[in-house]
Parts: sequence; structure tokens; C-alpha cells
Amino acid sequence: MDLKSAIRTIPDYPKPGIMFRDVTTLIGDARAFRVAVDRMVQPWAGAKIDRVAGTEARGFILGGAVAHQLSVGFTPVRKRGKLPHRTLIEEYELEYGQDAIEIHVDAIQENDRVLLVDDLIATGGTAEASIRLLQRAGATVVGAAFVIDLPDLGGAKRIEAMGVPVSSLVQYEGD
Amino acid sequence: MDLKSAIRTIPDYPKPGIMFRDVTTLIGDARAFRVAVDRMVQPWAGAKIDRVAGTEARGFILGGAVAHQLSVGFTPVRKRGKLPHRTLIEEYELEYGQDAIEIHVDAIQENDRVLLVDDLIATGGTAEASIRLLQRAGATVVGAAFVIDLPDLGGAKRIEAMGVPVSSLVQYEGD
Repeated sequence: MDLKSAIRTIPDYPKPGIMFRDVTTLIGDARAFRVAVDRMVQPWAGAKIDRVAGTEARGFILGGAVAHQLSVGFTPVRKRGKLPHRTLIEEYELEYGQDAIEIHVDAIQENDRVLLVDDLIATGGTAEASIRLLQRAGATVVGAAFVIDLPDLGGAKRIEAMGVPVSSLVQYEGD
Repeated sequence: MDLKSAIRTIPDYPKPGIMFRDVTTLIGDARAFRVAVDRMVQPWAGAKIDRVAGTEARGFILGGAVAHQLSVGFTPVRKRGKLPHRTLIEEYELEYGQDAIEIHVDAIQENDRVLLVDDLIATGGTAEASIRLLQRAGATVVGAAFVIDLPDLGGAKRIEAMGVPVSSLVQYEGD
């Protein structure tokens, strides 16, 4: 199955010149969603994953499904101020300004082997911050699985330079 | 398995007098997460569900897993301004002020039989708005499945008064 055909491209969103890759059409299609989850899990079949972590908000949908497929628990990586218990926080640079993400201090058990899941990797800023956060909480981050990679933006290379292997299902060059 | 023991209660969050029911501990536990998803699906086994819809953000984690378990697609109900394509919008009242949620105009196929999923039902304001939105998009909303019900706040009765049956796994009285 060609998953690319299940992804909608929205030109000039959120600003002129950006081709936005919209995975809601893939997630909304029963067959494409199931195939995507199967293919996201496949490279990590022998990796003894203990836990999936997903980044707010689209990473929650895919991460919830991947965790269910692997029969492991799920740890949400949330935007600042959303988690009710004590948290670890990690700030990171955006194109303009800063943002921050959090996990609960007790969300990871020491040496949990964690797979990070999100819909898309672009520059890798959020993924890098998520991995740092998970590592600070005691995780061994075994890999990072995305539906879409925009390789021109270098995110996958940046994450692999941290020693964390990356998988993706669909690549768009020239973005 | 007693799912209540997997849910963390945080007193006085987000403000004094509120007992916050934190499902991240349940979702983070491999066995509790799987049992919860199984039990959320069970009442709807004969209901011919075509699609799961979930409400941002915790409803994405549970909804993604429930959609995967049922082998159907998932439709995100998002906060205002988060979806990239054309949307339907529904405003609803909060304790102070208003909020709004959106779905993509083409997220539902006419007469799709939809199960709404979220972590918790309290007053039912968000669930009611979500159901109206799904119905406007052409869905038959077959039911609404929650992990937690706070029955004193009347949300489940409010949703059932709309003709939509409600299931929940755990109830907290006196909240």
C-alpha cells in the first residue's frame, strides 16, 4: 500500500511557501492507519521495547496505537503546563523564540527501553528535546519512529547523531 | 483487574477543592492500558463501529488505541485553530467564558457509525459539543466511551439525553 497517497498536502500552510503534510487523512482511513502502525512497529520488532513515548498532539494518536500494538504503556510528552503532577521540563529553540515540553518525573522506570513516536520529523528540535527529557528521566531511548521524514531539514541525521536510530515510512524531498 | 488503583488522584489540582483524576498512570502501565482499551471496546462489540473520534489531547491516546483495536480510522476533535484544512466549528460554554472545537469538514463519511472516546466525563460540555460536531459532519454517533465518569456532575445523563449511550470503566462519586 502506498501510504503517501493517504497523506494530504496543503500548500502554503501555515504560511506561504510551506507544503503542509496532513496525516489526519491517513489516520482517518482504516486501512492506511493499520498499515502505518504495522510498518512503524516493524523495524523495532527485536528491540525489546518497554514503553512508547509520544509528543503532543498528533504523536498521541499514533503513539497510543503503537503502544497498544506492542502491548506496552504510553508516556505523553506534553507542552508546558499541561501535566498535573511534578514534571521534568526541557526548553528548546524554535524558529522564533523558545518552547518547552514536559514529562511526569515518575513517567519512566529506570532503564525502560523507550520508542519515541511522532507523525513527522522536520528539523528535529522537538524530537531532540523529547529524547533528552526521556533520558533525564532514566530511559534508554532505543529509537524514534515517524510516519513522515523531511530529509532536507536534517532532523533524522540530528537524532541519529545523538545515537538514536530513526525510522520513517514516507519521505518528501525538496520541502 | 482494579483499574481504579492505576489512576492517580491529585488533590487540589488545578484549584483548591478539586480532586484531579490523572489517567497518565493508567496509560503508562502496560497491563492497565491494555485492560482499559479492551473494556472500553467491549460494550460496543456488536455496534458496527466505522470510526473512532477522540477529543484533544488525552482522548487522542485512548482513541488511537481503541481505533487500532477496532481496526477503524480515527478522527481528531481538536481545539480551535489546530487543523490545517477547512473545518466545522462548535462553540461551547465553560465555567467562565467559551471554548471551541473543530473537525475537518471531510473527516466523516456520510452515515459513518462513530464511537466518541475520551478519558473522563464530568459535566459533559466537551462531549456534547463533540457529538454535535460529528453529527453536523454526517456521523451517526453510536456511543461515547470514557475511562472515568464523575456521575455527580451529570455529564453521562446529559449525553444519554441526546440519545447517545455512554460507557465508563470507573466512577468517582462525591467529586
